[in-house]
Amino acid sequence: MEMKLPGQEGFEASSAPRNIPSGELDSNPDPGTGPSPDGPSDTESKELGVPKDPLLFIQLNELLGWPQALEWRETGRWVLFEEKLEVAAGRWSAPHVPTLALPSLQKLRSLLAEGLVLLDCPAQSLLELVGSTHPRKASDNEEAPLREQCQNPLRQKLPPGAEAGTVLAGELGFLAQPLGAFVRLRNPVVLGSLTEVSLPSRFFCLLLGPCMLGKGYHEMGRAAAVLLSDPQFQWSVRRASNLHDLLAALDAFLEEVTVLPPGRWDPTARIPPPKCLPSQHKRLPSQQREIRGPAVPRLTSAEDRHRHGPHAHSPELQRTGRLFGGLIQDVRRKVPWYPSDFLDALHLQCFSAVLYIYLATVTNAITFGGLLGDATDGAQGVLESFLGTAVAGAAFCLMAGQPLTILSSTGPVLVFERLLFSFSRDYSLDYLPFRLWVGIWVATFCLVLVATEASVLVRYFTRFTEEGFCALISLIFIYDAVGKMLNLTHTYPIQKPGSSAYGCLCQYPGPGGNESQWIRTRPKDRDDIVSMCVKTSRFFPSVVRKGLSDFSSVLAILLGCGLDAFLGLATPKLMVPREFKPTLPGRGWLVSPFGANPWWWSVAAALPALLLSILIFMDQQITAVILNRMEYRLQKGAGFHLDLFCVAVLMLLTSALGLPWYVSATVISLAHMDSLRRESRACAPGERPNFLGIREQRLTGLVVFILTGASIFLAPVLKFIPMPVLYGIFLYMGVAALSSIQFTNRVKLLLMPAKHQPDLLLLRHVPLTRVHLFTAIQLACLGLLWIIKSTPAAIIFPLMLLGLVGVRKALERVFSPQELLWLDELMPEEERSIPEKGLEPEHSFSGSDSEDSELMYQPKAPEINISVN
Amino acid sequence: MEMKLPGQEGFEASSAPRNIPSGELDSNPDPGTGPSPDGPSDTESKELGVPKDPLLFIQLNELLGWPQALEWRETGRWVLFEEKLEVAAGRWSAPHVPTLALPSLQKLRSLLAEGLVLLDCPAQSLLELVGSTHPRKASDNEEAPLREQCQNPLRQKLPPGAEAGTVLAGELGFLAQPLGAFVRLRNPVVLGSLTEVSLPSRFFCLLLGPCMLGKGYHEMGRAAAVLLSDPQFQWSVRRASNLHDLLAALDAFLEEVTVLPPGRWDPTARIPPPKCLPSQHKRLPSQQREIRGPAVPRLTSAEDRHRHGPHAHSPELQRTGRLFGGLIQDVRRKVPWYPSDFLDALHLQCFSAVLYIYLATVTNAITFGGLLGDATDGAQGVLESFLGTAVAGAAFCLMAGQPLTILSSTGPVLVFERLLFSFSRDYSLDYLPFRLWVGIWVATFCLVLVATEASVLVRYFTRFTEEGFCALISLIFIYDAVGKMLNLTHTYPIQKPGSSAYGCLCQYPGPGGNESQWIRTRPKDRDDIVSMCVKTSRFFPSVVRKGLSDFSSVLAILLGCGLDAFLGLATPKLMVPREFKPTLPGRGWLVSPFGANPWWWSVAAALPALLLSILIFMDQQITAVILNRMEYRLQKGAGFHLDLFCVAVLMLLTSALGLPWYVSATVISLAHMDSLRRESRACAPGERPNFLGIREQRLTGLVVFILTGASIFLAPVLKFIPMPVLYGIFLYMGVAALSSIQFTNRVKLLLMPAKHQPDLLLLRHVPLTRVHLFTAIQLACLGLLWIIKSTPAAIIFPLMLLGLVGVRKALERVFSPQELLWLDELMPEEERSIPEKGLEPEHSFSGSDSEDSELMYQPKAPEINISVN
Repeated sequence: MEMKLPGQEGFEASSAPRNIPSGELDSNPDPGTGPSPDGPSDTESKELGVPKDPLLFIQLNELLGWPQALEWRETGRWVLFEEKLEVAAGRWSAPHVPTLALPSLQKLRSLLAEGLVLLDCPAQSLLELVGSTHPRKASDNEEAPLREQCQNPLRQKLPPGAEAGTVLAGELGFLAQPLGAFVRLRNPVVLGSLTEVSLPSRFFCLLLGPCMLGKGYHEMGRAAAVLLSDPQFQWSVRRASNLHDLLAALDAFLEEVTVLPPGRWDPTARIPPPKCLPSQHKRLPSQQREIRGPAVPRLTSAEDRHRHGPHAHSPELQRTGRLFGGLIQDVRRKVPWYPSDFLDALHLQCFSAVLYIYLATVTNAITFGGLLGDATDGAQGVLESFLGTAVAGAAFCLMAGQPLTILSSTGPVLVFERLLFSFSRDYSLDYLPFRLWVGIWVATFCLVLVATEASVLVRYFTRFTEEGFCALISLIFIYDAVGKMLNLTHTYPIQKPGSSAYGCLCQYPGPGGNESQWIRTRPKDRDDIVSMCVKTSRFFPSVVRKGLSDFSSVLAILLGCGLDAFLGLATPKLMVPREFKPTLPGRGWLVSPFGANPWWWSVAAALPALLLSILIFMDQQITAVILNRMEYRLQKGAGFHLDLFCVAVLMLLTSALGLPWYVSATVISLAHMDSLRRESRACAPGERPNFLGIREQRLTGLVVFILTGASIFLAPVLKFIPMPVLYGIFLYMGVAALSSIQFTNRVKLLLMPAKHQPDLLLLRHVPLTRVHLFTAIQLACLGLLWIIKSTPAAIIFPLMLLGLVGVRKALERVFSPQELLWLDELMPEEERSIPEKGLEPEHSFSGSDSEDSELMYQPKAPEINISVN
Repeated sequence: MEMKLPGQEGFEASSAPRNIPSGELDSNPDPGTGPSPDGPSDTESKELGVPKDPLLFIQLNELLGWPQALEWRETGRWVLFEEKLEVAAGRWSAPHVPTLALPSLQKLRSLLAEGLVLLDCPAQSLLELVGSTHPRKASDNEEAPLREQCQNPLRQKLPPGAEAGTVLAGELGFLAQPLGAFVRLRNPVVLGSLTEVSLPSRFFCLLLGPCMLGKGYHEMGRAAAVLLSDPQFQWSVRRASNLHDLLAALDAFLEEVTVLPPGRWDPTARIPPPKCLPSQHKRLPSQQREIRGPAVPRLTSAEDRHRHGPHAHSPELQRTGRLFGGLIQDVRRKVPWYPSDFLDALHLQCFSAVLYIYLATVTNAITFGGLLGDATDGAQGVLESFLGTAVAGAAFCLMAGQPLTILSSTGPVLVFERLLFSFSRDYSLDYLPFRLWVGIWVATFCLVLVATEASVLVRYFTRFTEEGFCALISLIFIYDAVGKMLNLTHTYPIQKPGSSAYGCLCQYPGPGGNESQWIRTRPKDRDDIVSMCVKTSRFFPSVVRKGLSDFSSVLAILLGCGLDAFLGLATPKLMVPREFKPTLPGRGWLVSPFGANPWWWSVAAALPALLLSILIFMDQQITAVILNRMEYRLQKGAGFHLDLFCVAVLMLLTSALGLPWYVSATVISLAHMDSLRRESRACAPGERPNFLGIREQRLTGLVVFILTGASIFLAPVLKFIPMPVLYGIFLYMGVAALSSIQFTNRVKLLLMPAKHQPDLLLLRHVPLTRVHLFTAIQLACLGLLWIIKSTPAAIIFPLMLLGLVGVRKALERVFSPQELLWLDELMPEEERSIPEKGLEPEHSFSGSDSEDSELMYQPKAPEINISVN
């Protein structure tokens, strides 16, 4: 075998030190002074604006079958993670984190140190080298593999400009001693069928030698491939000018490896790719950081939240001090974006987002409309719900500060409306006129809140408040749904054998239903089962699964209706008027200002309106804060004041027309944003796509609500929907919301012995007794709220919710800021009270790991609280 | 600080080479020739019978607070896994696999190489050393910590004889350069409050030095502790005679570490302890293996099964060639154990096993008795079920070859009895006399099978047969349970609004029930929910959880009955006679031999008896094979022939008395064995207890069946059990059995896109198309069986089940032995056809990992098939 290459410009192997003392590995007691990746003398890359290095695809080709049947065979490939050829099964393994044995890395190092290193080698001379070590490749049919190469699904995943690196390893018995060679081409070339995908090859690593016990060359080849797949090694080796630089890069790699002791971990176990990769940003020397730009760092929500707090970076929440100052600023901020709010919608993704959100909106309109009709004896109904959703939603999308918000009837408002209705019945009031005055007052109060820039107070709504709010509404949902169903069994009792065995049962229908019937509570089970199974299943392609899971409530309704019809059950059905007119018989679309009520009730309505204003303010702003969080990377900014202003105006409109009241709904708005995610497409096997941002525009929302308006003509079909199905969805929503909040997890901790508790970050930093104390206080608050809700004073519950902010403030006297940071979030004053770098007292203590990286890897409770909408 | 120790005998630091070339790390290109743990010149340990080394508890004490507030503080501890002090939360972390940075290990190595190594140091002189580096310990109150030490829960876990190793690390600013010292005491001493638990200290590692950037000493201390916690390093360092040996042991450790590349894995992520530790056996040099004996290697069931096949090690299944030869051998093998079969039961664990199995047996007796009564119109019933279970079970426990077996009515026999009953009704036969003759013939056939040693054929029942058997019965269960419930809705129809809206409904009860009623299918949901929730919950201490999960079917019955009574539902109830007499009115306990049947039916009964014999043989022997698997480490051997003989005799008895037929039941017998597991008690945090064996005895079974017999007086209470509850349990059993078999997982694979498939070992070794082909053939067989089962020829289904063995044999022509090994098991001839070491063709291919270790770590489908019992 001829290893000498004639006339190489970049040929530096002979001039490089042939015997770097391998003791250098541990002759470096102080990290940072030895050979480090900061080292390479690289002047050109210091300029800004240099394009970032191309992605590298690495392939391990092994020479098998010595001595009779020599054959090169691809046995592994790497982009970020390792894929191994399952020889017997004839397929690629799942991507996994590569694990190496330390000796194979060390052997690779000494082989390279004594071997051949060609940097910036011209392609032509290399071809000879490759030809001589490829006894079989030359005789292959060159066409067939190339067609395979083009059809390779991996090719589509790799971004344009990607390059290949090939490791060639194996036994050649006639060699006297092992031979290592590392080649970097000056200009990469496409080398026929050498690589699985047709990419220009940039790097080659050749590891050949006499027969060796075990899997020496295979392991060394893997080590070389893993090394080449490391971004920092790539960075260094692309800029290396001699053997010394190459070995320095290898040593820098060794400095950073994680070591698992033998006997505690099986080296052949395949570790699935972690959910979140450690930030390369920290590892890169400063020049690289500048070049790589924002594509590399990836802030996770957990990191964000704990580093900055949820609101720290919201310039929208700075008080201007002038009347309507916030509103004016919001308008000023949003106006320049207005044309782009429509142009940015020109993408196919928006089409599917419209379909998806339309279905969700219609489902919401049906569910809340039906329940509202149920609660107000038909003063509100499905028809009003459709009309109101369409009008209010579309108007909001056109005017609002945050057009991604989907307006909907929400749980808290539904609860309040029910209380208001029973209040007006207690005083024999004409409901809709009274409600109109409540609406007028609420709009007024909200305008005052806008004028005084009250939205900046949103910073006092910490997770403690949000979760109290969410938990109470969820519990009301669950209690109501179960109560409704039990109530139906009372209204239409199950035949008891004692009372009328063998007897006859003649029952006249109650006010809500239209026939004597047996109420079956199964729809809710079905609903739960549908959404549970579907969400966790792995059976269908992801598109189908996503569809099934997203439309689980639609499916549950359809399934419920189908079964109801199939079994011919006489369940109470949704009430829908036969024509396009208000559900309440005998009223026009415009609500008369007084009706049969004495005039002074229009003034007295200010009191419930005050409570409703608090509720609407909290509901609207908590949702707005969640939607405008840092982690969604919104570019066009928020509009807290403008949003509240729009809600106030729409309040007036819907009250006057006798339509339901609307505020921003958390879950459906999040779903809207999620369906508009921009993600990086090309990605390595096993890697999760990069989140780039959200298509911020007004068009999808607008179209959704226009479609919802058009769906009013669906109304005649809706009368086949059985009420128990809606109660089932209601129950499911309550349970889902309750189980999504951290509070619930902490309540579970109360019941769990310490040994079985999950390894939550929270528990690493706060003593268990303190965690329990915090949970107990929250439970007590919730208990108190529940008691108030059960008394005749129920209608004041919004005030009590606001009281949670006070309780949270008082907790500052019980808990340290550090504890509150982990258990909750910090209020504005608390944030200021903690020095910039001193949030974690353990940081100063050497026994603690770096919190930053811990934060990124911990399995955390979902960060996004699902409010009941 | 005075570091010179006067007059040390074991003082070898000065004579040891001060500067071992640290390049030795990678100067060892061929593993096995360099310094290795085989090296230490240790003569005494070569003798057999030397006690194994004591367990080592390692503690890391750090010197914190330089320079003002020096304080030693324990920050980590190790036995097998690492526990870290969560400083802020004030508690120990969950045990996890320790991860190290490579530089910290290398720095530790160079520090020790240049430091002080005292081996076999007398304790007294060490105390001075420790005293001088313990500025604060001396002033501590020596009593208080000692009381803490005794109360430490860790102390109870550690076995007697355990020793401690302490790593002392930290910054001492006045030191000019870092100082490392390693001390091994000749005789370990208890050193006051130095260690958290009061153990004699054997090893000390001291790492002190000037202030260093980062967490240098902490990480080096951790590295030293992890090193000390490695069993092989312990072995070497206990026998090391000089610095060179110590460094060689460290290098041997480094040779074996697993390396994770940076950027692919976060070094601070805590890896939970693996389910199964890699075998230390492979790592130990040969001398150690002899000394350590059988406690170290731990064969997992997966390893067993694939290495040996399930039957390869059953001497009980060797044919003798003589008439009744197997039976005689079984008796000869079991007789010597007979006295110990009662003496071995003297353990508290047997008491709880009795309680547990008694409840399961009674539940089974009720369920199967109830269903049998239902299927045979009362020819069998709950009373017969109780009586039969007690008599047959107790007799079997006294006589059988495998007394851990619990006899019970099983699914297949229940299915056959139902078919037999409908057959006899079709021919207007007197059922019980006809059944008596079937029983007589079955007993005869079974005796022939015993005489001819047919049980050795059990080796032809591979997983293919077992799963076909199980799947068919499970499907029949599910189909029947659903059918029964739908049937009840037909018998007692749900009121339909179309037919009789507002109308009256007067229904006379059908034959099974006693009142007009509304059938609710909910008990089954409840049952599922109870067992699902409870089994996955982490809320209660493990004892409570285990109890709840074990008794979930009892709980489901009680809950079902309670709800049924509370809601006053008129469900059909279990039929129980009012006094102690057969359920069928007007018959005595002894069945008349002919009744109203013509005499020749007693001959014709031979035909169904032949089928039943096949069924009973298969059912009994499949269970017996599962129970006698290698992985349960049974010491007293199996008795396949003797067991079948006992079943035949009991067949005769139960037929004559008109009691149900009994064979061994898989699930309940496995539960019995599980409740009698012997496990190692003392174990390190994070380690799973070692399985030692099973208390093989006859007493627990005997007592269970005596109690069951006594429970006949419970019968009056049983009439409150609603039949739908039993159907629900039936359904649950079917679903559970179906979901436990590998076949089901493979059917799921058919529906899953390759990307989402779990990383099953199977899929790594067999091409997906071949896996799908195998599954499709199994599905086709099952379809054929189902069709036959649905025709009037249903009663011949046992013959068809046997046909599965033939199909499996034919599969040899379609699949290679290697594929069958992974998809199924090997039949005797196939085992012989494969060369001893050549089972895995990939073994010869360098690209493959070692299968042994892969087998131990792969998440596998449960190995134990749950037959429907």
